[in-house]
Amino acid sequence: MTLVAPRREARPVRIGRVAIGGTAPVAVQSMAKTPAADAPATLAQVFRLAEAGCEICRLAVPDRESLRAFAWVAARSPLPLVADIHFDHRLALDALASGAAKIRINPGNLGGEGPLREVAREATRSGAPIRVGVNLGSLEAGLARSLGHTAEAMARSALRYVADLEQWGVPGLVVSAKAPDVDRTVEAYRLLAGKTVWPLHLGVTEAGPGTAGLVKGALGIGLLLSEGIGDTIRVSLTGDPVTEVHAGYEILRGLGLRRRGPEIISCPMCGRCRLDVEAVVAEVQKRLAGSLAPHVIAVMGCAVNGPGEARRADVGLAGAGDGKAVLFAGGQVIRSVDTANAVDQLLEEIARLPAGGRRAEEESEAGV
Amino acid sequence: MTLVAPRREARPVRIGRVAIGGTAPVAVQSMAKTPAADAPATLAQVFRLAEAGCEICRLAVPDRESLRAFAWVAARSPLPLVADIHFDHRLALDALASGAAKIRINPGNLGGEGPLREVAREATRSGAPIRVGVNLGSLEAGLARSLGHTAEAMARSALRYVADLEQWGVPGLVVSAKAPDVDRTVEAYRLLAGKTVWPLHLGVTEAGPGTAGLVKGALGIGLLLSEGIGDTIRVSLTGDPVTEVHAGYEILRGLGLRRRGPEIISCPMCGRCRLDVEAVVAEVQKRLAGSLAPHVIAVMGCAVNGPGEARRADVGLAGAGDGKAVLFAGGQVIRSVDTANAVDQLLEEIARLPAGGRRAEEESEAGV
Repeated sequence: MTLVAPRREARPVRIGRVAIGGTAPVAVQSMAKTPAADAPATLAQVFRLAEAGCEICRLAVPDRESLRAFAWVAARSPLPLVADIHFDHRLALDALASGAAKIRINPGNLGGEGPLREVAREATRSGAPIRVGVNLGSLEAGLARSLGHTAEAMARSALRYVADLEQWGVPGLVVSAKAPDVDRTVEAYRLLAGKTVWPLHLGVTEAGPGTAGLVKGALGIGLLLSEGIGDTIRVSLTGDPVTEVHAGYEILRGLGLRRRGPEIISCPMCGRCRLDVEAVVAEVQKRLAGSLAPHVIAVMGCAVNGPGEARRADVGLAGAGDGKAVLFAGGQVIRSVDTANAVDQLLEEIARLPAGGRRAEEESEAGV
Repeated sequence: MTLVAPRREARPVRIGRVAIGGTAPVAVQSMAKTPAADAPATLAQVFRLAEAGCEICRLAVPDRESLRAFAWVAARSPLPLVADIHFDHRLALDALASGAAKIRINPGNLGGEGPLREVAREATRSGAPIRVGVNLGSLEAGLARSLGHTAEAMARSALRYVADLEQWGVPGLVVSAKAPDVDRTVEAYRLLAGKTVWPLHLGVTEAGPGTAGLVKGALGIGLLLSEGIGDTIRVSLTGDPVTEVHAGYEILRGLGLRRRGPEIISCPMCGRCRLDVEAVVAEVQKRLAGSLAPHVIAVMGCAVNGPGEARRADVGLAGAGDGKAVLFAGGQVIRSVDTANAVDQLLEEIARLPAGGRRAEEESEAGV
């Protein structure tokens, strides 16, 4: 049994220059959190997100003023932008005419069939796909009454609109059905996966802050990806959206789906610890911020697992006591270093590494 | 298909007063990170961990001085303590005589069969179980040569020692096989699950700092628990061990296995946000720190999913603009509040809730 099942094959859809579905890698996306009408602040955040590796960025468009900001940002954005529209379908029409690479709607709150048909027509004209984005918190009243706030109700709601939009003709669809808990989120996407050909956008919605949000997002998105379900992901977190992007890549890395930037293997520290692992790791992270090279760097407190892990990494450092640490690279002890300048020495070794890292090669030699 | 498969039935083992395996809930554990010889600092950290919900705490015992500290802490500890021993089996013997509720060893580094038999004898005398804790970074050289640094090599290493210890007689065993990546960790435990009757201690080792560590831990532990594998968990993180405990409970809550303390459903904020969700959530978390009541509290920025989520939570707050927010409880709008004192009002409503929370009841009414 492998970690990740073969990927469900979704019909490919293009969001600006980014392909999702088909054989495209799982795309990482996020959403701007600046006030929707504040165009310069939003553009600045989009640039920060792009730098962190975000591939698609969503902006809320709640009113006319935000629509003007959306158009301004779209004209300057380094990323394809998705307009997130609720209640007023005319905003969707105008966002499509203002550079939206995709629009996200919850069709149940757009005012009925007439407005939805208009949106489908305008999307066809502009070539932008539509995400049918159902959310447990805004589930249609009828389905909520008959089926409760269940995964099945979410999936049915999404599939009903997908069928309508397919019939009316659209350039492409993406589907999501998010709940604020792992259980209903996973169940809803499993239902969708078997019943639509379109790419699935994964996320646990309103996952919350910090540790709780990261864990919920990793569980929900991770379980689905491990089943081969999901074409693009967004980790919803209360806080800086850059963390959402980092978390997205960590989920993909953890499942062996994509690698971006350095991976730090560092011990949790314990009573044996002979190196300030936390401080060294923080310094290494700071100095490698923005690096795309997928090197594996080990920072270990002591001799129990230290040399073992450090050897298997591209570069490693293990505490040795008495103000000393040992530096490893390419499976060999390089030298003993003073902990005071251990980070400098570690960074020097990292700078010497081949861009793709060494570990993969070593492991293939070892027959792993 | 449910989120979590029926649990693998492991033979029950007692670690002091805490049972693992059998029908016991999955236990959350952590490890002290204070210097091993610093008894007062270690005891203080054990108390902090206990307050956070930690149920079993491991201490490193690398030398005689640490052994004295271990005995001192064990005599005063609110939690059963596990002595973590490498290289010197006499430390294991003495830790067992000094109040260890379990010892964790990697039998391959204890000096061969003779010392290991002595440890088994002393464990039998004291009644404490032994964790056979294999780690990829300290895999036996012979197995690493023949099988590479693989999940199979880890599982074989662990099972070989389990067989020896079973044969010599021990009061109980717990088994772990941790790698610093999700893939080999999951594979190793899957192999163990089918080949031993003993409880499994789950963890991704050296998972690293912050976001990366949390994601790796949640993925590895979460995937295994979802398959019904695992009896106790430890989330290894570079940093404060209290975060490890919180993360452990979040994993269990996310999978519906255990609930401890409030759950906050909060939106990720976006351009529509009309409430400082991040600040409100931080304040609510601060003021509910240490609360064990598993209430579901929603903090939502706007009207799109806000009222929906807030209604399904035990208590909820949704931004309404112009310095106002709406307070929900028991499925009803309670009142409009000024955002300036919204947290006070929210806390007042929380104080009025039944201890177990309302949501479960509501959902059963709604036929969910």
